[in-house]
Amino acid sequence: MQLKARLLEIEAGGNLIVVLGKQKAKELGVVSSDRVKLKANQLETMAILNIASEFPDDAVGVYREVKSKLGLKEGQTLQVSQAERPESLSFVREKIMGEKLGAEKMDMIVRDVVERHLSDVEVASFLTALQVRGMSMEETEAMSLAMVKSGKSIDFGKTPILDKHSIGGVPGDKTTLLVVPIIAAAGYTIPKSSSRAITSPAGTADRVEPLCPVDLTIDEILEVVKKTNACMVWGGALDLAPADDYFIKVEYPLSIDPMLLPSIMSKKKAMGSTHVVVDIPTGRGAKMKTIGQAYQLARDFIELGDRLGMQINCAVTEGEQPIGQAVGPVLEAREALATLMGRGPPDLIDKATSIAGMMLDMVGDKGGKRKAAKILSSGRAESKLRQIIEAQGGDSEIKLDELAPGQKQLDIEAKKAGRVLWINNNAIALLARTAGAPSNPEAGLVLRKKVWDRVSKNEAVLTIYAENADKLDRAERLAEELQPITIGKRLGETMLLDHVTKGRIQRQDFILER
Amino acid sequence: MQLKARLLEIEAGGNLIVVLGKQKAKELGVVSSDRVKLKANQLETMAILNIASEFPDDAVGVYREVKSKLGLKEGQTLQVSQAERPESLSFVREKIMGEKLGAEKMDMIVRDVVERHLSDVEVASFLTALQVRGMSMEETEAMSLAMVKSGKSIDFGKTPILDKHSIGGVPGDKTTLLVVPIIAAAGYTIPKSSSRAITSPAGTADRVEPLCPVDLTIDEILEVVKKTNACMVWGGALDLAPADDYFIKVEYPLSIDPMLLPSIMSKKKAMGSTHVVVDIPTGRGAKMKTIGQAYQLARDFIELGDRLGMQINCAVTEGEQPIGQAVGPVLEAREALATLMGRGPPDLIDKATSIAGMMLDMVGDKGGKRKAAKILSSGRAESKLRQIIEAQGGDSEIKLDELAPGQKQLDIEAKKAGRVLWINNNAIALLARTAGAPSNPEAGLVLRKKVWDRVSKNEAVLTIYAENADKLDRAERLAEELQPITIGKRLGETMLLDHVTKGRIQRQDFILER
Repeated sequence: MQLKARLLEIEAGGNLIVVLGKQKAKELGVVSSDRVKLKANQLETMAILNIASEFPDDAVGVYREVKSKLGLKEGQTLQVSQAERPESLSFVREKIMGEKLGAEKMDMIVRDVVERHLSDVEVASFLTALQVRGMSMEETEAMSLAMVKSGKSIDFGKTPILDKHSIGGVPGDKTTLLVVPIIAAAGYTIPKSSSRAITSPAGTADRVEPLCPVDLTIDEILEVVKKTNACMVWGGALDLAPADDYFIKVEYPLSIDPMLLPSIMSKKKAMGSTHVVVDIPTGRGAKMKTIGQAYQLARDFIELGDRLGMQINCAVTEGEQPIGQAVGPVLEAREALATLMGRGPPDLIDKATSIAGMMLDMVGDKGGKRKAAKILSSGRAESKLRQIIEAQGGDSEIKLDELAPGQKQLDIEAKKAGRVLWINNNAIALLARTAGAPSNPEAGLVLRKKVWDRVSKNEAVLTIYAENADKLDRAERLAEELQPITIGKRLGETMLLDHVTKGRIQRQDFILER
Repeated sequence: MQLKARLLEIEAGGNLIVVLGKQKAKELGVVSSDRVKLKANQLETMAILNIASEFPDDAVGVYREVKSKLGLKEGQTLQVSQAERPESLSFVREKIMGEKLGAEKMDMIVRDVVERHLSDVEVASFLTALQVRGMSMEETEAMSLAMVKSGKSIDFGKTPILDKHSIGGVPGDKTTLLVVPIIAAAGYTIPKSSSRAITSPAGTADRVEPLCPVDLTIDEILEVVKKTNACMVWGGALDLAPADDYFIKVEYPLSIDPMLLPSIMSKKKAMGSTHVVVDIPTGRGAKMKTIGQAYQLARDFIELGDRLGMQINCAVTEGEQPIGQAVGPVLEAREALATLMGRGPPDLIDKATSIAGMMLDMVGDKGGKRKAAKILSSGRAESKLRQIIEAQGGDSEIKLDELAPGQKQLDIEAKKAGRVLWINNNAIALLARTAGAPSNPEAGLVLRKKVWDRVSKNEAVLTIYAENADKLDRAERLAEELQPITIGKRLGETMLLDHVTKGRIQRQDFILER
């Protein structure tokens, strides 16, 4: 039928959605969530239908995504007809029913996710089915390749291409900011793309941004890597495995993460990586709770790497407490720079040189850890970071003082003397987010004490930074409630790690970072 | 923060949704699908957030549902703050992870579904998890009671209250239109609420509507039942187990139906039913494919009935072909009325009297089927139907000729002589829907031949009715393609029931009726 476009001038969250009044929908024989085919301006698209109880009878309501896809103008005539459901929807149903999906079906699902032929409801159902049914290694491989195919790939025209990736879950993990310059200074190519925080106080892209722009195009990345052997950019706008953005959007409210392996590995594949170290932080408050879990995941990464033609080593790392002292974009950038300049915390130094060392060993450069440590202590890694900063459009002369945290600050003090026995990662992350990180990059916190450190009564154990008094206040109240740092005279003296009550507000303890 | 309401003047499909620009969302520390709390006019509500890349910086976009909940005016100031996720979301996650949910958790989920505190994405995930994990009988009972609690109940102030329900799946099943007047004429109370079609050519509410209004209020229902012992109304607007509407909305695109038992039984409970016959049509093209499946479902209905304090008997009925000859609202109303007037097809008469007989037996009125048949043949059931029609506001003198089908009609002819060996229920349903049923009530079809009937070459096997030539045309082409009726000289001569090819358009063969 012919209808007039009524532009709603609002986005539908990336979805292709149109609105019809009840009566028109009935005439067309369609109900809510059915598909319609739209034709205008010699263009055609499919859209998902919403039904409104009141809507002009001669009009079809058009959200912005459909408007721009068809180049519509207000009042323009549009041909609207019933459309078949995408075939991929029956594959979603097969997965719900427990069947295994092959490569062709995965391809069609991923393509329909990217082209928005599947609705959020349908994607949610698919991801829930994957979470409950699990994915076989064949399916994981098929999904990874489908995700690569659905987006762009970058060819740096040489080999090996090194890379590292942390599955996340530990606050303050700025290891990448050290590993990338170490590896590049050793003469290897390491084009690193990272994500922004989803549920954490800072993703690696957030940590790099105080130093230099991270939102580069593929051409700019090729240029930067040519100059410096490396880059540290935000992967979100590069259109590598774009289906993942839609998956994350749906996984986040559901607190599920069935796509961990294909999501990470498809992006590595799209970057042309040949040798990758995957960091699996392990701790009771991290994403992987036990060493056994970490080994299982490591085996899966290595097998999937084999199937995709990438050599993978995994680092199972200490994740019982934050890495270094700083948490929050600016504070972490500052700590990383300070470490490259020779004044860093021992855990961060050890983690960075261990992982860089593994990478060097993987490409046959034996004694990697020792070499990495030398590159770090010699200042060559610092120079390389400054080269990268300059190549990405930042100030290569940046000083530590220019990385200033939020102006409002407050110390949280120890209520008794003793030693730090336990730091609650989840509480630390929540505290830093409450102070404003990462949307305010200057917000965050600094741990004055780490596990095993001695502390006197009323000594500062952590400092919170925020941009205004209100946020500082909220963070202080939360610190009082959460008690993120447990102190005792000796291990075992204070056995209570956390208290949980029925009435206690439900906290976001799900880690969706990958 | 304080923002100005920008009314979007469009519905969000029943959901409570507001829109913020990217920058404001960042300031508020929220991302897409997070919850915000809204305050205005001394009222408060929670809403789910969408984020727009371009949106006025001082405004919050408000869909109609939120507008009416808070009584907002364009430009009015609104207090917007971050809100916690509903606790029920963690129970959804528990179900995904394979835990069993108790009554309290089911109550909270259902309440949050009804109050729109859970988004469509979250409801989709919950239903998918239920579909994959299954529900224990304890969970099914808890869900049924939660659904009853979430809505209204009707108390007719007497006992027993009889009822019947078909799980659907067979086209042309107008049995209810005979059973209700038979039971009421026998002196028992049978307040029947029915649904409209979702995926079929006619639901029972659609079939009754050509005879009289079906959209009654609870007070009107009480009045009609007082007068006539019965009613035949649409249950959709009665607010009995309202969560089901939201569940169906999400189940439909996913083609899953995990809520079959609680959906049906909660509505029976809300109507105060004490004795219920559940009809389970069984056939290769019906919802239940095998007798074994039918028995399993029957056992579940009976056990759930025990738990909910209702006596349930199940009728496993023949579902290999449509019931009677007519398919489509008006055609079926006409066939039902004709049957009550003494000119009905034998399968419909047998099914109606069998089910009515079971109901009479259940309340101790032995020899039920014989009594039911007598009430039918004596004309007492017809008089009762006319009483009900009048009480509901219809014309009690309605004649068969007044129930006229669509003006455009077309016979589909047999391509060879023989006997009808097989009628494809799904193809018949699709054909009737393509002709326009149920949105056009006069559309549908009449089977001139049923299984085992003799047919000559070029004899009409079915007649399609539509309101215009275009729809008739589409239905004709579909009939040619689907060949819904298989003819052969003897059983076994024509073994091909249907042909399925890869390229063949994906058909809607999912039956979401309950």
